[in-house]
Amino acid sequence: MPSRFRSNLVNSCTGYKSCNLLGTIAADGTENLAIFNSVIHIGSNPPLLGFVLRPLTVKRDSYENLKAQGYFTVNHVHEAILFSAHQTSAKYEGEISEFAQTGLTPEYMNDFSAPYVKESTIKIGCRYENEYNIKENGCLLVIGRIQQIYVPEEMQHKDGWVQLDKARTLACNGLDGYALPKLLSRLAYARPHQEPKVLPDAH
Amino acid sequence: MPSRFRSNLVNSCTGYKSCNLLGTIAADGTENLAIFNSVIHIGSNPPLLGFVLRPLTVKRDSYENLKAQGYFTVNHVHEAILFSAHQTSAKYEGEISEFAQTGLTPEYMNDFSAPYVKESTIKIGCRYENEYNIKENGCLLVIGRIQQIYVPEEMQHKDGWVQLDKARTLACNGLDGYALPKLLSRLAYARPHQEPKVLPDAH
Repeated sequence: MPSRFRSNLVNSCTGYKSCNLLGTIAADGTENLAIFNSVIHIGSNPPLLGFVLRPLTVKRDSYENLKAQGYFTVNHVHEAILFSAHQTSAKYEGEISEFAQTGLTPEYMNDFSAPYVKESTIKIGCRYENEYNIKENGCLLVIGRIQQIYVPEEMQHKDGWVQLDKARTLACNGLDGYALPKLLSRLAYARPHQEPKVLPDAH
Repeated sequence: MPSRFRSNLVNSCTGYKSCNLLGTIAADGTENLAIFNSVIHIGSNPPLLGFVLRPLTVKRDSYENLKAQGYFTVNHVHEAILFSAHQTSAKYEGEISEFAQTGLTPEYMNDFSAPYVKESTIKIGCRYENEYNIKENGCLLVIGRIQQIYVPEEMQHKDGWVQLDKARTLACNGLDGYALPKLLSRLAYARPHQEPKVLPDAH
């Protein structure tokens, strides 16, 4: 199988992925922004997320910054910033910030020492926690501990759940496809020998 | 923060997740099926996927089976099987197969020794490869090596990419929300100082 064909197939066959911008800052103050489709939920208590980093990619700046500074931000991509978000994956030479290159705006909030993306609707501030080397292919699973979460009030339900389609958050389909999901329903906790039930809208 | 509120918030704030059914079989022939929202792409060469397993959950059957037999299947959830797929998370007592309980059909193809879901459109057969203990919360990242992929021809583009909305594959929003994504566009490989471009449909 040709390498590009294989990459497209294997990257798209596992289902939809999250679509986020990782914001970091270097010791010299240079801000970095990079699109990632590998951010995942790891656990709620303690609140942890993870993302997979390829052995050698343009995203190495993000990794070096978050290791050195200890902090990074995760910012949802929505339709209006899709082109700018995708453009952060271009390999810019030298010390040029992807914020400046793509027109996205760095934003510092509540003394958090990594830049958020002002244009994003849902944003998370994380402290670097640990990393695991996936020896099968040399990738790294980086674990971050969530320290700050920003969600507009009208997108969060009374029970804490965030309705992502209200933020028009995108999902990734493979390496380069972007899709807009629409909520079908929330389902009640499943119990044996009971029909599945749709949760009433508790917003 | 109350535990359920925290769990809903943290599970939904990282963005969309994949939505898959894992099929396994025990040594005594009992088939097991369980919904997972944590299946992720790990790498293309070798073709690897992963999923996160909580320390002690109903999904332990899947884990014991795939460790013992060495194989498992990953089957996309689409709208028509959503209720049955969600119902696999109910805690059935004893040796009752979730296939029988939910009306989904086990299917064996090309000598693969774990059951696929006949009603799923996109399916992957994996061999257990390795696991990593995430010591921060005791979760396991299980790594599988992809051995078989089934994708209907009309859903795959010439360059290998699989257009997931043609399969009506769902995405998960948090623990219990299900969303149907619609493709916006595929974007061309990003290059510095060039405007982002939409890829022509090479289907």
